[in-house]
Amino acid sequence: MAKKWVYLFNEVEKAEAYAGSWDGVRGLLGGKGANLAEMTRIGVPVPPFFTVTTEGCNAYIAEGNQFPEGMWDQMLEALRGIEEKAEKKFGDPKNPLLVSCRSGAKFSMPGMMDTVLNVGLNDETAAGMVELTGNERFVYDSYRRLISMFGSVVLGIDDEKFEEVLDEMKAEKGVKVDTGLNAAALKDLVEKFKVVVKENKGFDFPQNPLDQMRLATEAVFGSWNSPRAIAYRKRSNISDKLGTAVNICTMVFGNMGDDSGTGVAFTRDPQTGDPTMFGEYLLNAQGEDVVAGIRNANPIIQMKDELPEAYHQFMDITANLENHYRDMQDVEFTIERGRLWMLQTRNGKRTAKAAVKIAVDMVNQGLISKEEAIKRVETDHVDTLLHPQFNLATLNEAKKTGRFFVKGVNASPGAAVGRAYFDADLTEAKAKEGEAAIMVRPFTKPDDVHGMLASKGILTTEGGATSHAAVVARQFGVPCVVGASNAKIDMNKREITCNDVVIKEGDWISVDGTTGEVYLGQIDVVAPSLEEQVELLTLLTWADEICATEGIRTSVNGSPTRGLQVWANADYPADARRARSYGAQGIGLCRTEHMFFEPERLPTVQAFILAKDEETRTTKINDLLPYQRSDFYGLFEAMTGLPVIIRLIDPPLHEFMPSEEEVFEEVITMRVKGETKGLAEKEELLAAIRSMHESNPMMGLRGVRLSIAMPALVEMQVRAIFEAAAEAKLNGFEPKPEVMIPLTGTVNELKWIQPRLLRIAKDVMAEKGVEFEYKFGTMIEIPRAAVTASEIAEMAEFFSFGTNDLTQMTYGYSRDDAERAFLVTYVEQGILAVNPFQELDREGVGKLMDMAVRDGRSSRPNLEVGICGEHGGNPPSIEFCHMVGNNYVSCSPFRVPVARLAAAHAALAHRK
Amino acid sequence: MAKKWVYLFNEVEKAEAYAGSWDGVRGLLGGKGANLAEMTRIGVPVPPFFTVTTEGCNAYIAEGNQFPEGMWDQMLEALRGIEEKAEKKFGDPKNPLLVSCRSGAKFSMPGMMDTVLNVGLNDETAAGMVELTGNERFVYDSYRRLISMFGSVVLGIDDEKFEEVLDEMKAEKGVKVDTGLNAAALKDLVEKFKVVVKENKGFDFPQNPLDQMRLATEAVFGSWNSPRAIAYRKRSNISDKLGTAVNICTMVFGNMGDDSGTGVAFTRDPQTGDPTMFGEYLLNAQGEDVVAGIRNANPIIQMKDELPEAYHQFMDITANLENHYRDMQDVEFTIERGRLWMLQTRNGKRTAKAAVKIAVDMVNQGLISKEEAIKRVETDHVDTLLHPQFNLATLNEAKKTGRFFVKGVNASPGAAVGRAYFDADLTEAKAKEGEAAIMVRPFTKPDDVHGMLASKGILTTEGGATSHAAVVARQFGVPCVVGASNAKIDMNKREITCNDVVIKEGDWISVDGTTGEVYLGQIDVVAPSLEEQVELLTLLTWADEICATEGIRTSVNGSPTRGLQVWANADYPADARRARSYGAQGIGLCRTEHMFFEPERLPTVQAFILAKDEETRTTKINDLLPYQRSDFYGLFEAMTGLPVIIRLIDPPLHEFMPSEEEVFEEVITMRVKGETKGLAEKEELLAAIRSMHESNPMMGLRGVRLSIAMPALVEMQVRAIFEAAAEAKLNGFEPKPEVMIPLTGTVNELKWIQPRLLRIAKDVMAEKGVEFEYKFGTMIEIPRAAVTASEIAEMAEFFSFGTNDLTQMTYGYSRDDAERAFLVTYVEQGILAVNPFQELDREGVGKLMDMAVRDGRSSRPNLEVGICGEHGGNPPSIEFCHMVGNNYVSCSPFRVPVARLAAAHAALAHRK
Repeated sequence: MAKKWVYLFNEVEKAEAYAGSWDGVRGLLGGKGANLAEMTRIGVPVPPFFTVTTEGCNAYIAEGNQFPEGMWDQMLEALRGIEEKAEKKFGDPKNPLLVSCRSGAKFSMPGMMDTVLNVGLNDETAAGMVELTGNERFVYDSYRRLISMFGSVVLGIDDEKFEEVLDEMKAEKGVKVDTGLNAAALKDLVEKFKVVVKENKGFDFPQNPLDQMRLATEAVFGSWNSPRAIAYRKRSNISDKLGTAVNICTMVFGNMGDDSGTGVAFTRDPQTGDPTMFGEYLLNAQGEDVVAGIRNANPIIQMKDELPEAYHQFMDITANLENHYRDMQDVEFTIERGRLWMLQTRNGKRTAKAAVKIAVDMVNQGLISKEEAIKRVETDHVDTLLHPQFNLATLNEAKKTGRFFVKGVNASPGAAVGRAYFDADLTEAKAKEGEAAIMVRPFTKPDDVHGMLASKGILTTEGGATSHAAVVARQFGVPCVVGASNAKIDMNKREITCNDVVIKEGDWISVDGTTGEVYLGQIDVVAPSLEEQVELLTLLTWADEICATEGIRTSVNGSPTRGLQVWANADYPADARRARSYGAQGIGLCRTEHMFFEPERLPTVQAFILAKDEETRTTKINDLLPYQRSDFYGLFEAMTGLPVIIRLIDPPLHEFMPSEEEVFEEVITMRVKGETKGLAEKEELLAAIRSMHESNPMMGLRGVRLSIAMPALVEMQVRAIFEAAAEAKLNGFEPKPEVMIPLTGTVNELKWIQPRLLRIAKDVMAEKGVEFEYKFGTMIEIPRAAVTASEIAEMAEFFSFGTNDLTQMTYGYSRDDAERAFLVTYVEQGILAVNPFQELDREGVGKLMDMAVRDGRSSRPNLEVGICGEHGGNPPSIEFCHMVGNNYVSCSPFRVPVARLAAAHAALAHRK
Repeated sequence: MAKKWVYLFNEVEKAEAYAGSWDGVRGLLGGKGANLAEMTRIGVPVPPFFTVTTEGCNAYIAEGNQFPEGMWDQMLEALRGIEEKAEKKFGDPKNPLLVSCRSGAKFSMPGMMDTVLNVGLNDETAAGMVELTGNERFVYDSYRRLISMFGSVVLGIDDEKFEEVLDEMKAEKGVKVDTGLNAAALKDLVEKFKVVVKENKGFDFPQNPLDQMRLATEAVFGSWNSPRAIAYRKRSNISDKLGTAVNICTMVFGNMGDDSGTGVAFTRDPQTGDPTMFGEYLLNAQGEDVVAGIRNANPIIQMKDELPEAYHQFMDITANLENHYRDMQDVEFTIERGRLWMLQTRNGKRTAKAAVKIAVDMVNQGLISKEEAIKRVETDHVDTLLHPQFNLATLNEAKKTGRFFVKGVNASPGAAVGRAYFDADLTEAKAKEGEAAIMVRPFTKPDDVHGMLASKGILTTEGGATSHAAVVARQFGVPCVVGASNAKIDMNKREITCNDVVIKEGDWISVDGTTGEVYLGQIDVVAPSLEEQVELLTLLTWADEICATEGIRTSVNGSPTRGLQVWANADYPADARRARSYGAQGIGLCRTEHMFFEPERLPTVQAFILAKDEETRTTKINDLLPYQRSDFYGLFEAMTGLPVIIRLIDPPLHEFMPSEEEVFEEVITMRVKGETKGLAEKEELLAAIRSMHESNPMMGLRGVRLSIAMPALVEMQVRAIFEAAAEAKLNGFEPKPEVMIPLTGTVNELKWIQPRLLRIAKDVMAEKGVEFEYKFGTMIEIPRAAVTASEIAEMAEFFSFGTNDLTQMTYGYSRDDAERAFLVTYVEQGILAVNPFQELDREGVGKLMDMAVRDGRSSRPNLEVGICGEHGGNPPSIEFCHMVGNNYVSCSPFRVPVARLAAAHAALAHRK
């Protein structure tokens, strides 16, 4: 017996029995077919139809574009089923059944595959329909549409051949739009279209309705492998093996008089999420009229007056559908002579704002659970809701008027508008004067940070998504576009040029860090705030609950690990406060070196570095202590009751010095000019800077290596931390300092430095007479640390994965160079699926992390494990952190809401 | 019942039964005690003795310097055993027994612990001995020695107190040496020494022999924890827990007349290994006279005339001992009144040359097996035998005359003498003129290599053991001292200065790369050759046999992996020939980039890099093809029948360009001077060089990344390889090319590049109409490659561990900077046990290697695995390579013999 290739409208249970699940039914019948069948099952009026399965499509393709055994017979039998239900007969001039032949794959591929309407019309049935309806214009309009659609879609005749004839006819009749043509003209057009078919194909337009149906079905199958469909699937990660179903569906007509109509609607507002029906409808019209905008559609409420009975039925049905599918529905319907037919239903697309509101509202209505609400909101939704955006209308206007300037890498989301300034000092100065300033640089360095912080947005022409500019911008939530390499900056002229368009210093510029696009002039910006987004706040609270309850994982030693928390990377009290208000449950990384770059401190830092004797060095270090103490005090105050991880100084000393190139140029210039005054000092400075030069500074004297070479600096830092914490405690706060030692590669480094630091911690607590919780731990950012984690955990009370460096070392990719040099190419050529600095590499870096967590907890079962690299705010990376058993992820304060949702997604995806 | 703390001379079986093995006996009785007992057992005449065990020592220390229960009683009983055997009685004036009280730990610690001789002498027994021997001078000489030795060693009186008294006595008697004092003077001295004891300690010198024995025993126990003994053990890696035994041994005297004598001897010549007795002896003398050199000792053969009976007995006994211990013995003996006593035997120390000769001779004599011979020769022995060395006499002379100049890091072993030249070109020019030239530079770069190759030796003031200079020098076997940072080079004056001593260009200088020492002027050099060292060649052949038979390991999939082979790193045919003559079984690494640095080729390479269009680029690449082909042809010829691994180009392009700093200086100078001619070209060159600049070039655009960015270069290389191999095959050689792709981090890199290269390989073979074996494989030098080895092995037919880079990335240590910046400090402070660039880090890097071999063979069971990093010539690293299942190690040709022995050692140490 042949396989079952065809399912009639009332066979959804059979399909479910065969496919095993609703997802299976969607796979078998396609999304459209499955929903039509489901609507039929629950009593919604759907025009009778049958579906040829996706398996049929695959079999057709596999057999070299031949219908597999039994398919045609099953279609014919199903057609009889439709005829019976519709009480019409396919090809019968007396009472003809017309059908549409529509594609419908498992996943929606809008506009990518073919559809043929009005199948079943020929000279005889057309004549019959005229008799039945008395509407000759309607019938020949339908017939000429069939011939042109069939001609182009099924027979492959160029669209334009029909368009030309139509245009001639309109010219002849002196009308501008199709609707101006009367019945006679349309009947004439039918004949002319038949000629087009004959001339182009050498045969007549098929008059046999069964031939029409067969050929249309083959055309839909064939459209699965059209180049544009293949390209779409590749882009959308849809498998080529799914195939499309074909739905043969009774035609109904909304253009049969003033008792007919058609419309599309969303059961809730897809822009705002408000629970009011949102849609358009037209009396006496066909669906395509609504879509084409030939006539202005009316709001759906107008139907209440014009077709009250159908309206109430429609409202009942859509409410029923929303309840049934437990989601906002996007429906199409037609009223034929007072009778309502639902032609399609599917979960409606929506904006970020609507997604959140609908999800929360539906929980409150008891329609869905909190878990479902969490699952339905995407992390990108949350991200979008938190960043300023360009007003769409003004953006479109800007595009139309040629104000697009350049596109770079979208490094930090959000839109910003300001005047372009080409250095950090000027940017800061202008910002202090109250100007909106956009900092434009070839690239940025640590001593540009004050300008970056003062700016509304940042644009660089070099660097990639993990360049300094990108990382700092994300950290501080400043919109940023980097690597706009088509543009060139001329620092002498102080201007940036792209395709001969020049932006001079002080010109207005609009930067969209979400898309990477840059525009000339000003575009309106809409700026949201988290506090006002009540539904989002509610949703995130649920996300936290789910993490805490569903996120529990079994640890290596069999005991449960509590759910994933979200902490934040924050260097300053203001960041910490923001992080806390965004729901951070701790500070996962406070970088102390930023504190050294501040203008009032940097000279002291440089004097310390250049000190020739121990006494000067000690003096300079002690000068830094009060600054550091007050930095830390503010953090403990802001984060009272929550852990604050402070990383001891990490970067190599030369980062605090002037650039070698600049000083070298000064020295050579002085030498060539014969200037001697101050030359010796300059030469000495140059020699000092050169003595710090490293071929590969990323793998050089930094982190714990620097601390071992020069323990006085970190001893000062630990004293500052514990003095600040003690003071906070005495003032009634609850400090929880965690001291993090960076760049550990062997446990012996910790054995050397940690006892020295611990002694200071204890000394300070004894001096101040207070006690509080504290921890000493380390970054895991060197592959060897991951590989020897069980030893390292003997000293470290916590691990924090520094996945930026860990990725760097594991791949041997220099973060400063790789994107420019080859990473972009690698991603383009598919050598890398994604940029591993943006999304954690599970196979390589992730394997080391997994080893580290297991081995670390094997020697210290209650080891606290987190991540503080850039990946801590990236949803797929957060999921992986959940999988390996992290206690928390730490990310930029602005990413905290996103991370909270991502953590909940991970908890739900991996619950036992 | 008390534990057995004391073993009598005839109780070696009891000791063995208790300790379980001969090693255990040595642990229990100490080396000296065990050998004395063993000699007793096999009938060698040894003065009666007993041994207090090391356990006794530990118990004594553990109980707060108290003899443990039963020890003293057991000592008294053992003393009775000695008395019986010696037929003398301790403390009996009629027939007094004198004993020595000697330390003796498991491992020899020469001079570190205490010994007291002549114990048992007091006023009464001295008088009795005078009667017995009629030799008053001998008796009081012995007595005064006891008092001063006991006084200083046991009672802790400053040596000098006795010296002063002795000096006064000599002055009084008008004699210069002790032997000038007659019996009366010595008797007087005894009384004066007693006064010294009384004055310094407040009590009399103990007259009771048992008190003497007890106190001497305690002193020896106590000396185990003397500061110098502790320091020695720390230095020699000897456990503090072993303790020392105490040997109470009947005194015999070689100074009792012309029928007495004493001597020390080696059973074979410890310098040359020749099988002739080598030693010294003195008639009528005590052992210390031989050692102190007061009288000129005679060759042992003189004993044949003077004491023929004892001589023959001695020759028999030593032959017997050598057979018994199956090794060359270092013995001490005394003849007392015609009776021969053996006082000590132990395996003798020997030179490298002797070690090899003795081992091979003993195999030929049937005394030991080949395995034992292999085990007895150390890899350092082989290393020493292969490098030129300073003649010891002239070296000592140089030291005495203040010609020591500076000490640096011993980067490449061997001694070299020549004139100092301060740049590569001059070094090469002078060498071509026939001068012996030593190249002296602050550091070296790839374009210095021609000078380095022409030089006899290299001295740098910067860089560590893995700096460019060090690596290249080792590769080419040029003696090299690096990082002699106490010396400063003035390139303007062209001189090097250390402590105000100046070496000017052209001055003679002697460089010892084995010790790191540098001397002024010329020191004679002795230059060995492998071919002439017949025994070494024999030994290495045995080593290879052992690797092949005993080195078989079980692979991951259960099948056996053949024993470890030794291959060599060789870039040129001459290196390959040398490697083969040294026993290399393949080329594990041919670096192709060196071929690009040659003066005639570099301009073409630079033109290729700077090419602005594809046509120029292609032309330049094609210009390089014939050079490369002939390079490779020579390798295949030299290595016919053996595999040759050729690594495709690895370094970043900027390494082929002039230095940025130099060009920058030229540009600025021209700008400041207002020179315009040629400025634009210079600026363009500078811009080009700067565009190649990378912040961390070691992790940048190099290796396979460069090949993917610019496949034409490696496509040319593969064509050159296969054209050369085809030509070699057609000329009757048997080429086995293996193409190695460097710096792989993801299998997708191989999937991208390998098929392109494979196609070229097949094309060439088809063009030439020949077939030969070949492989495509990759370096494993990126941690991610090790972690994802199973995927990488799906493409790669072989792995070669690039442990230089793998160590670099795993630790995050930049090889160019780390040693200078912190590695030396880390090793000094014990944070690292060894420099991981010299000896493979088993816990970290090694763990990744182990994973890579297992995972790689899990997807490709016959995966060929080797190592081509610097570690391939380091014995502990070679052992690890054996343990993880490598097929071969590859090292510098000069290290091949060392590696062959190390591989055999590993095979024996880990055989099942």
